[in-house]
Amino acid sequence: MFSTPAMTALFSGRAFVERMLVFEAALARAEARVGLIPGEAAEAIAARCRIDLFDLAGLFGESTAAATPAVPLVRMLTALVDGEAKRYVHWGATSQDVTDTAAMLQVREGLDLLTARLLAAGETSAVMVEEHRGTLMAGRTFLQQAVPISFGLKAARWLALITRSATRLRTVRGGAATVQFGGAAGTLASLGAHGEEVTANLAEELGLPLPDLPWHAERDRIGEIAAAAGIAAGSMAKIASDLVLLSQTEVGEVSMPGPGRSSAMPHKRNPVQATEALAASRLAISAAATLLGGMGHEHERAAGALQAEWQALPDLFRFTAGAVEWVVAALEHLEIHPERMRANLEQTGGLVMAEALTYAMAAELGRPEAFAVVDAVVMRAGAGGISFREAALANERVGAVLSRERLARVLDPASYLGSADAFIERALDGYRQLRASRQRCLTSSTRGSSATRSIHRIVRGRCSPCTAATRCHRKNAAPARPA
Amino acid sequence: MFSTPAMTALFSGRAFVERMLVFEAALARAEARVGLIPGEAAEAIAARCRIDLFDLAGLFGESTAAATPAVPLVRMLTALVDGEAKRYVHWGATSQDVTDTAAMLQVREGLDLLTARLLAAGETSAVMVEEHRGTLMAGRTFLQQAVPISFGLKAARWLALITRSATRLRTVRGGAATVQFGGAAGTLASLGAHGEEVTANLAEELGLPLPDLPWHAERDRIGEIAAAAGIAAGSMAKIASDLVLLSQTEVGEVSMPGPGRSSAMPHKRNPVQATEALAASRLAISAAATLLGGMGHEHERAAGALQAEWQALPDLFRFTAGAVEWVVAALEHLEIHPERMRANLEQTGGLVMAEALTYAMAAELGRPEAFAVVDAVVMRAGAGGISFREAALANERVGAVLSRERLARVLDPASYLGSADAFIERALDGYRQLRASRQRCLTSSTRGSSATRSIHRIVRGRCSPCTAATRCHRKNAAPARPA
Amino acid sequence: MFSTPAMTALFSGRAFVERMLVFEAALARAEARVGLIPGEAAEAIAARCRIDLFDLAGLFGESTAAATPAVPLVRMLTALVDGEAKRYVHWGATSQDVTDTAAMLQVREGLDLLTARLLAAGETSAVMVEEHRGTLMAGRTFLQQAVPISFGLKAARWLALITRSATRLRTVRGGAATVQFGGAAGTLASLGAHGEEVTANLAEELGLPLPDLPWHAERDRIGEIAAAAGIAAGSMAKIASDLVLLSQTEVGEVSMPGPGRSSAMPHKRNPVQATEALAASRLAISAAATLLGGMGHEHERAAGALQAEWQALPDLFRFTAGAVEWVVAALEHLEIHPERMRANLEQTGGLVMAEALTYAMAAELGRPEAFAVVDAVVMRAGAGGISFREAALANERVGAVLSRERLARVLDPASYLGSADAFIERALDGYRQLRASRQRCLTSSTRGSSATRSIHRIVRGRCSPCTAATRCHRKNAAPARPA
Amino acid sequence: MFSTPAMTALFSGRAFVERMLVFEAALARAEARVGLIPGEAAEAIAARCRIDLFDLAGLFGESTAAATPAVPLVRMLTALVDGEAKRYVHWGATSQDVTDTAAMLQVREGLDLLTARLLAAGETSAVMVEEHRGTLMAGRTFLQQAVPISFGLKAARWLALITRSATRLRTVRGGAATVQFGGAAGTLASLGAHGEEVTANLAEELGLPLPDLPWHAERDRIGEIAAAAGIAAGSMAKIASDLVLLSQTEVGEVSMPGPGRSSAMPHKRNPVQATEALAASRLAISAAATLLGGMGHEHERAAGALQAEWQALPDLFRFTAGAVEWVVAALEHLEIHPERMRANLEQTGGLVMAEALTYAMAAELGRPEAFAVVDAVVMRAGAGGISFREAALANERVGAVLSRERLARVLDPASYLGSADAFIERALDGYRQLRASRQRCLTSSTRGSSATRSIHRIVRGRCSPCTAATRCHRKNAAPARPA
Repeated sequence: MFSTPAMTALFSGRAFVERMLVFEAALARAEARVGLIPGEAAEAIAARCRIDLFDLAGLFGESTAAATPAVPLVRMLTALVDGEAKRYVHWGATSQDVTDTAAMLQVREGLDLLTARLLAAGETSAVMVEEHRGTLMAGRTFLQQAVPISFGLKAARWLALITRSATRLRTVRGGAATVQFGGAAGTLASLGAHGEEVTANLAEELGLPLPDLPWHAERDRIGEIAAAAGIAAGSMAKIASDLVLLSQTEVGEVSMPGPGRSSAMPHKRNPVQATEALAASRLAISAAATLLGGMGHEHERAAGALQAEWQALPDLFRFTAGAVEWVVAALEHLEIHPERMRANLEQTGGLVMAEALTYAMAAELGRPEAFAVVDAVVMRAGAGGISFREAALANERVGAVLSRERLARVLDPASYLGSADAFIERALDGYRQLRASRQRCLTSSTRGSSATRSIHRIVRGRCSPCTAATRCHRKNAAPARPA
Repeated sequence: MFSTPAMTALFSGRAFVERMLVFEAALARAEARVGLIPGEAAEAIAARCRIDLFDLAGLFGESTAAATPAVPLVRMLTALVDGEAKRYVHWGATSQDVTDTAAMLQVREGLDLLTARLLAAGETSAVMVEEHRGTLMAGRTFLQQAVPISFGLKAARWLALITRSATRLRTVRGGAATVQFGGAAGTLASLGAHGEEVTANLAEELGLPLPDLPWHAERDRIGEIAAAAGIAAGSMAKIASDLVLLSQTEVGEVSMPGPGRSSAMPHKRNPVQATEALAASRLAISAAATLLGGMGHEHERAAGALQAEWQALPDLFRFTAGAVEWVVAALEHLEIHPERMRANLEQTGGLVMAEALTYAMAAELGRPEAFAVVDAVVMRAGAGGISFREAALANERVGAVLSRERLARVLDPASYLGSADAFIERALDGYRQLRASRQRCLTSSTRGSSATRSIHRIVRGRCSPCTAATRCHRKNAAPARPA
Repeated sequence: MFSTPAMTALFSGRAFVERMLVFEAALARAEARVGLIPGEAAEAIAARCRIDLFDLAGLFGESTAAATPAVPLVRMLTALVDGEAKRYVHWGATSQDVTDTAAMLQVREGLDLLTARLLAAGETSAVMVEEHRGTLMAGRTFLQQAVPISFGLKAARWLALITRSATRLRTVRGGAATVQFGGAAGTLASLGAHGEEVTANLAEELGLPLPDLPWHAERDRIGEIAAAAGIAAGSMAKIASDLVLLSQTEVGEVSMPGPGRSSAMPHKRNPVQATEALAASRLAISAAATLLGGMGHEHERAAGALQAEWQALPDLFRFTAGAVEWVVAALEHLEIHPERMRANLEQTGGLVMAEALTYAMAAELGRPEAFAVVDAVVMRAGAGGISFREAALANERVGAVLSRERLARVLDPASYLGSADAFIERALDGYRQLRASRQRCLTSSTRGSSATRSIHRIVRGRCSPCTAATRCHRKNAAPARPA
Repeated sequence: MFSTPAMTALFSGRAFVERMLVFEAALARAEARVGLIPGEAAEAIAARCRIDLFDLAGLFGESTAAATPAVPLVRMLTALVDGEAKRYVHWGATSQDVTDTAAMLQVREGLDLLTARLLAAGETSAVMVEEHRGTLMAGRTFLQQAVPISFGLKAARWLALITRSATRLRTVRGGAATVQFGGAAGTLASLGAHGEEVTANLAEELGLPLPDLPWHAERDRIGEIAAAAGIAAGSMAKIASDLVLLSQTEVGEVSMPGPGRSSAMPHKRNPVQATEALAASRLAISAAATLLGGMGHEHERAAGALQAEWQALPDLFRFTAGAVEWVVAALEHLEIHPERMRANLEQTGGLVMAEALTYAMAAELGRPEAFAVVDAVVMRAGAGGISFREAALANERVGAVLSRERLARVLDPASYLGSADAFIERALDGYRQLRASRQRCLTSSTRGSSATRSIHRIVRGRCSPCTAATRCHRKNAAPARPA
């Protein structure tokens, strides 16, 4: 209920084993390239790195006992490989090299999935922004009507939030989700003098960024990934919260037709999509906090905090995906009711224009005095059963500064939108730049070494656009972020 | 106990009011530059933006009642400004513009403080790295001895973590800590057509980056700041955790002379500095999680989640500073005991060289068979009251592959450090690049507009190097990050 | 802003030192009672346990360095005590005995403060419950109007929540907040054979419950305290959330006159009290989570998790107090608008009575068929610009089951309140029982040993009703827990 | 990896649907008992409340769309029931009544599972306590050797922690895990005058405690459940943390033979069970914090926070079960090495007896002077390459107070255990009382109404001892709470 099929599949046990096998194959090839193991051995190993050859139930059972899936995986893979090649399986690596790198392969794809769906939310938002530039509604602070805004601006703020969230995910993809390779305790002693070269080859084979050092017990990158996804999830909470509030019976400015029926009440139409987005967002942020809180790994490999990541990292991606997807669904089904927006804006009899009146007079009277005059108008309206508009008309001080015609214009919400349009343009521009830059990455994805392609074929049956995208990211590192 | 005097002062109520006044002065000037208010009014306002003119106790008292310090501040400032200028105080701004921007001014300086102290930790670490390149010790996974490493490598991993943490803080400083200016509900309607220009001027006056849109209810930037500081705090936990574990009575590889006496036990020397770093780190990460969990702000300004930031953001910086400072203190007082490291490495009678022996034979026998042979040696040593070394010498299969001389070399921990030196170089390089890039920023800091300088003089009595540094950041955005 | 003066004072550094001195005095007396130290020495020590004799700034400075305030406190107290008595200061105790017990003395008083203020909230709620038993309003699920309720019932649910929260705090006060006394590592070896007896005397002197064992590194009791306060804070969030939502401009069913002005908008009346309650509640729950997350203390005393409690436990109480107090303020200033409640209920043209109509017909048609008929009525009303009431009148199937008179009664919200009144009675009863039981405790507080009274006089200048209350709790409540 | 098969099954989707059906059957019977629906209808409904009649995949699919599994369940059940009885399915209930009560049925069983496994841990601990009363080891504070303790005392503290944790779970089971029944918005309007009576019948049918009021949006009970389980998980972290630290290569006082092999290092024996307990504990506490942080439910049913419970509550129980089970496994496989304990105690050359020496002389010299003398001895030992024992022997002030024979006795760790034995007795007593009280509950479980039995047979194929146990709890424990 709180995730998507694609993300659930990506972070399944099976998909994790697949990526561990991608690691083992890439490792063998990376080592063959420097002559550490024979080329035929590497190919023989890679040829057995096929998920369908493995007894997954058995592997998961042993994983629990061994506290890592790497031990049974290596045992099983070794048994599958014939002859001489058997000798070179998992050469020089430690369990955590396999599990961390497999996790980073999932993370890379998970970030791509999130980005793609954020862009879907962006696309829908962008359309709403354009369409509702001029749709007036109440801006609300502390949930009280404050001054008019346009629904286009509100959607533009969602769009900018989506754009920034997606940009952050792409930055992390090109930076933090690096290969892990350090051997038993981070020295790569088992590779003799070949450690650095093999690591570089491995990163190339996998299309993952190369880290400065192995990071078995330095989990700041995990923290970065957690933060980027958690912030995306928190951003979804902002949008969903707005949607739930706007769809209240008494507000009624949007509705989300869909399946939100009640088992007891025939008339109920619950804002189901926004509700589930809020739930998923809470769960995602909780997973992010668990990861941030578990960075103090002991010595060269942790006892406890590391293993907890195996649950929390998949949870993070699953629930963030759920939050994004439910926001997509909410936005795609959104019905917008400009007439209710307008009616709500009128509900206070013009009170929502109090600031506008203040500033209209402030040029003449100064802000403090204008504030005091309008305050008196507000009091009069409150006390006397007349509207703010009527009270303003009746106020002498107001009349002394503003003619009736000018007052009417001042009290027209449409006249008081300030820079809303400019902000809308910026949000649209930022989004379009992101979309275009991503398009370029995807287009350039036909590149990539044949070795990489064949490895990825194991997992996904196709050449991955992600690899090239990663490189593309790395070259341009985050130049476009909207700050 | 869990912070530093400098950070406590920076995030004090008084310092916050000072920065609110910096905002009000900069706002007036920014508006005067576009002719929205008279230039003399701006200067008259700026002249009263002096903390010593304000009754702070009264201001804080009213803040509680008004749920924001901006309301009493504006009231008091208006009262202080004479004549015509009074009219233009706080023109077009809303409370949250003042409080958010003041907070970002604190954040910018807070990030600088953290960076400076992280570099102090880096400096000490770098010296240890150089000195202890060849100091052998046990690498430990699951807190069990695994294979040899050098203390230099362990310190290099701390150094790389510090470097990455500092780099992250600088990225956030140049990106997320932007000016906030949106007026009542984010349209800047009160400024008519001047909204964008005034915002740009304001950003320039304050030396803060310009955001894409006002962000009253979109708190992803707060999330980014929380994450960067939280990750720095979590990184301190890693270092401190290592220090506490290394200083255990039974391990004794480091000690932290200092004030860690007991009220009951004359002999106790507690690892006080590392302990307090761990405590402060927990508290900092908790504050980060609070901020990440509070991103779902309602409509155009939140009721609750916003106000909670006023406690959680200062807490985040205070406790992160505490964590960093206690790590600095721990490292500066650190006594390293190479002889205990060596003795601990010997304690297992050579077991810690089991992997080395495996790989020495694996070239001949293949990894699986070599593993099995060494496993038998391990069992023999465990069962028979003889050391691993003796058991290896006695094993026929071992003898068939390795001569006695070769075996002796294989079992020498110094021969099994792999890429440790290369990794050390990378950590040192990364750190030096960061240090140099920061130096360039600081040197270029004599630039900056006179307006900016004078504003900053209000707060700090001197021209701020931060302003230029910010610009420097913005030009080079994060080119050097170690991925 | 997020606490109260009383709680801030109770959890100040000064108040903590006061309670450490209460411990030292009580310890001396407890030891004198078994002859471990001379009676005159005990009185001489107790006589110097006066906060005004201590240099607090110096003490706090040394605390940081020593990682505990107990070390400088014992040093200073020893210096203050003359002659022979000096020998017996802090006899047999360890730093954590002092700090933990002092914290439990704060906790006990903190729980009393919270309980008292919760009862203040209860008192106000109870009045509202009585007054608004018959005030109809919409019940809302998913923020959508569902069926009618009464405002009295909503307030009764708040009241029951308050009652349960206060009861939980009292349970914890009588159970979890026990004395701590274990000596250096929990054996009380320094007391020879007198350990248990002295502990019992100490508990009696302090009026704190006696634990089963010393609990230096077993922090489940801290977890219990955290949970009870955290749940109270979370309960305040429920009430405050309702208040913010009810006070929305478009809902307008309550308002909280008070200081919630805007710096920009003269007409704004923000629900300040409820907003601050929500902020304080978030902060309190974050502190509770920090405490729950820090229970894994190492060996006989922790390095890090223990020290973090010194910040998190005071934060917990401070912010919970803030949450409670702002709810008290909100409720005391609450203006209730029954006419808006009624108008909102009418707003849907009777849709809110859809379930009522379903069940009125279900007796005849069965629930599924009745649901389908009413569904058709709902659709008709939605499509046709007529109200639900009109659509119901026009529906043949409805007409076949219900006469027009019966239908009118069925569609009257007042007829569809079910057990609301019974639930209201239960909430009132539960609250009254709690109030009465607490009254009995307070009345019996003239008891208590003279030793206890004199110790408490040191701290508070008066005999504490809490002591007797504690005993009262211990006699009547939760007798079977191992506490 | 972080849970148990039993708990995973209990909190599976299937098991949840089973319990929803138990609710629907019990509801029908409860209503038939007051004549609200025909008795035959109730039996006809109950007869179809069989999980194997339901298309679970279809049900889960619809659940996502409807944001609740109750809507499709009621639809499917209605379709399964024939004739007249169909009319009375789900009579008067709302979705949340079903889901909350089904969750409480899971919680009740989950608490029983946790309690049973905690007692298994207790049983093993109790044996260790008895066996190792006299096994000396170092007590450690700040991970530094402090004074001697016995391993029996350490295990006794674990035992007491386990006992208190289990007691807390039982308290919650008898109190907080109540039936939920409120109808659409908590008034039970759909039941007319029968609301209270049906609720009481329903509670009886299900063997769940009766709450004061329906609690759709008042989630303090969820908070209580979260806290009790979270504290149990945190307690497991304490034990597991001790075990990991004791099993370090350099400490070696315990080992946990088992499957903890390395994929790279033949000699490694990782403390797998304790490691996984630590990981599961982190995850459980994170779920508890999510639940505590989600108590601010809106109005009469929440949008978001409620739905997040559906993930977090099962997670809480799954991971707490994992933490408990891994501690059970660790304790059951624990090998204790008294000789290493003794050797470590000797390692400091007697320094660990510094406090003992202090107090031996303090009777004569007073504590401050004795402390100073011993401090000098400590310094001498540290500086001079001689042991603390030798330095003590050589010190004149020591010699003046203690004869050589007396000094030898003072420096014997076995002489300095204070109240350790008494504390051990208390821990054993507390545990035995809990075990006996639980036994009584289980024995009395043959009682229970036939209706209850038949309902439970649906789910579990046998009469549940839990039902009677619940009653037993309700009679004996926590009678005054408003439940």
